[in-house]
Amino acid sequence: MTKGRLEAFSDGVLAIIITIMVLEIKVPHGDSEFKALIPLLPIFFSYLLSFIYLAIYWNNHHHLLHSAVKVSGGIMWANMHLLFWLSLLPFVTGWMGENDFAPNTLFLYGIVLLMSAAAYFILQNLIIKKNGKNSKLSDAIGKDIKGKISLVLYVIAISVAFFSPMISGIIYASVAIIWMIPDKRLERLFED
Amino acid sequence: MTKGRLEAFSDGVLAIIITIMVLEIKVPHGDSEFKALIPLLPIFFSYLLSFIYLAIYWNNHHHLLHSAVKVSGGIMWANMHLLFWLSLLPFVTGWMGENDFAPNTLFLYGIVLLMSAAAYFILQNLIIKKNGKNSKLSDAIGKDIKGKISLVLYVIAISVAFFSPMISGIIYASVAIIWMIPDKRLERLFED
Amino acid sequence: MTKGRLEAFSDGVLAIIITIMVLEIKVPHGDSEFKALIPLLPIFFSYLLSFIYLAIYWNNHHHLLHSAVKVSGGIMWANMHLLFWLSLLPFVTGWMGENDFAPNTLFLYGIVLLMSAAAYFILQNLIIKKNGKNSKLSDAIGKDIKGKISLVLYVIAISVAFFSPMISGIIYASVAIIWMIPDKRLERLFED
Amino acid sequence: MTKGRLEAFSDGVLAIIITIMVLEIKVPHGDSEFKALIPLLPIFFSYLLSFIYLAIYWNNHHHLLHSAVKVSGGIMWANMHLLFWLSLLPFVTGWMGENDFAPNTLFLYGIVLLMSAAAYFILQNLIIKKNGKNSKLSDAIGKDIKGKISLVLYVIAISVAFFSPMISGIIYASVAIIWMIPDKRLERLFED
Repeated sequence: MTKGRLEAFSDGVLAIIITIMVLEIKVPHGDSEFKALIPLLPIFFSYLLSFIYLAIYWNNHHHLLHSAVKVSGGIMWANMHLLFWLSLLPFVTGWMGENDFAPNTLFLYGIVLLMSAAAYFILQNLIIKKNGKNSKLSDAIGKDIKGKISLVLYVIAISVAFFSPMISGIIYASVAIIWMIPDKRLERLFED
Repeated sequence: MTKGRLEAFSDGVLAIIITIMVLEIKVPHGDSEFKALIPLLPIFFSYLLSFIYLAIYWNNHHHLLHSAVKVSGGIMWANMHLLFWLSLLPFVTGWMGENDFAPNTLFLYGIVLLMSAAAYFILQNLIIKKNGKNSKLSDAIGKDIKGKISLVLYVIAISVAFFSPMISGIIYASVAIIWMIPDKRLERLFED
Repeated sequence: MTKGRLEAFSDGVLAIIITIMVLEIKVPHGDSEFKALIPLLPIFFSYLLSFIYLAIYWNNHHHLLHSAVKVSGGIMWANMHLLFWLSLLPFVTGWMGENDFAPNTLFLYGIVLLMSAAAYFILQNLIIKKNGKNSKLSDAIGKDIKGKISLVLYVIAISVAFFSPMISGIIYASVAIIWMIPDKRLERLFED
Repeated sequence: MTKGRLEAFSDGVLAIIITIMVLEIKVPHGDSEFKALIPLLPIFFSYLLSFIYLAIYWNNHHHLLHSAVKVSGGIMWANMHLLFWLSLLPFVTGWMGENDFAPNTLFLYGIVLLMSAAAYFILQNLIIKKNGKNSKLSDAIGKDIKGKISLVLYVIAISVAFFSPMISGIIYASVAIIWMIPDKRLERLFED
């Protein structure tokens, strides 16, 4: 019941974040030439990347909360904390896209991804703690290698943003691809 | 349960897409003459067309998921893929409306409709596969003639956009009308 | 189940419409004087009026669908039709507010209210038809005097908009007040 | 059932309010220097403050409605009244942030917080009245000292806004912190 409303609110916020990002792709006024769209391409690709990230977050959030039985005040705040960082994604996505993946923008994009990942990590740990360390959920997540590798990769990408923006961008895309591969651990638990 | 949240998230995204499109109809500032609204008419009509398309997608999506019993990670990603293409609809709708249905804009609008239809097709097939080829859903959808005709019509409309924008526009409107006629196949299944 | 998703989608659209209207009240840039807010007052009042109208629609829509047992494809389209007209409310609200309740804007505002009311009327009749003319819902709505009076009042307000904008505005406010008084008929049914 | 839809609509509106606020943090166009972000810092902090306030409202609203058994027409309108004031939060947040926490903007921000708190107070009382003065909910809320202190603090902050904007801002932040500490009273009830 209560979990249901937490899910519903999170769904609402995630749905809005994922959709308002597209508002950054501004319609070129009074110009129907295809070349009017060329300056929009970096914005489109930054949108695509962030769309995938938000889809991953929704997917994992969905599995995580599905497995939870009990919800506490702390879990609610940890969830809000995650939503806060994700809500900044449209801004950094827009800034990155409008400046053609400039180093500073890749740096800030990485910071928001890192903070979101950290917020997710906190939420996950609180849910495991509340639902018992020997719960199915705890077993399913295990050592959370994927989660930890992501954090390390974000830190690397942020660090190299000023020296090699391209490598930084490739790392962000790679982390997204790693996570798009469905999380068998949670999915297995979830089908039982 | 899980299906419920997939539906809720999709509802959220579709509701936002259908509503933010109207933000493209910009309020004329400091002008209360009716003639200030005339330049907005093409935007209004492109909005109307896209509203109908999104209503159709919501309707069919609703029936499709209602019939599904099992949901997999693949289905979730196929659903996200569909939502991605539909999320681009406000942009192409705005571009088309602001440029008075110019050929290039009709072309791009068709591409987004075609990709959305293809994404829906993939989602539908994954759901049938997951729920059994002999399931009620599979019987109900059958050969999906309407779906296949739509794909062909989109391709035709896209192809002729540069030669005869009017025919292209008429085809988009016709496909919408074809789908507004309720899908008896699914509705029948759905009432059982 | 199916009704649930129709309600969820409608809730989503209504929630977005009611909230994006406030985006028309543009933050005055670089001016913290109170007098910078004065030009926003008509926009604020038009927002307040439309907020109340949308709250009324949500309230009545909620009762109407709560009472319905069966939902058909026709009902879904009638619902989409209603949402379409209501989705135009932010535009006409903004136009009216930004032009200080000019006659033309009051006229158009009334047209959208009238079309919304007509769409609601169609939806209501389809639901009664589907659920039986002798159903509790049918009894509860009865002759729907309030609904019919509203339609007449909208027509009067639209007609006088060009001659006496003030009377027109007073009528819109009055209809809102009439509906804010809770609908005992439906509420009674609803508590049984 | 009915309560469920009231919650769903409120969740939708709150999710949208919390997310569209971030649209006020406008992406700096064609400037990837970090110093382009400096003018956005006050907007960022005003966003953070309002995000926390809305999270608190969602949290408390969630507990309040969870505890309610019966919902009336009056409760629905009291809920709409609360949502109305909260819907003005993005505007006053943007005005405050864009004017570097100028006295006038702190004053207006406080007015909206005060009106929201008053609206919440009315909603709470109506729910207690409807669900019985001796209900668990009534016991849990008790004398609502936190709620009353907040009202007083808002009045003080509003009063001193013109003399000492800093104190005013500190009070708003303090009230937020007071409420972030989970409400044991309701949470206890809620776990039974």
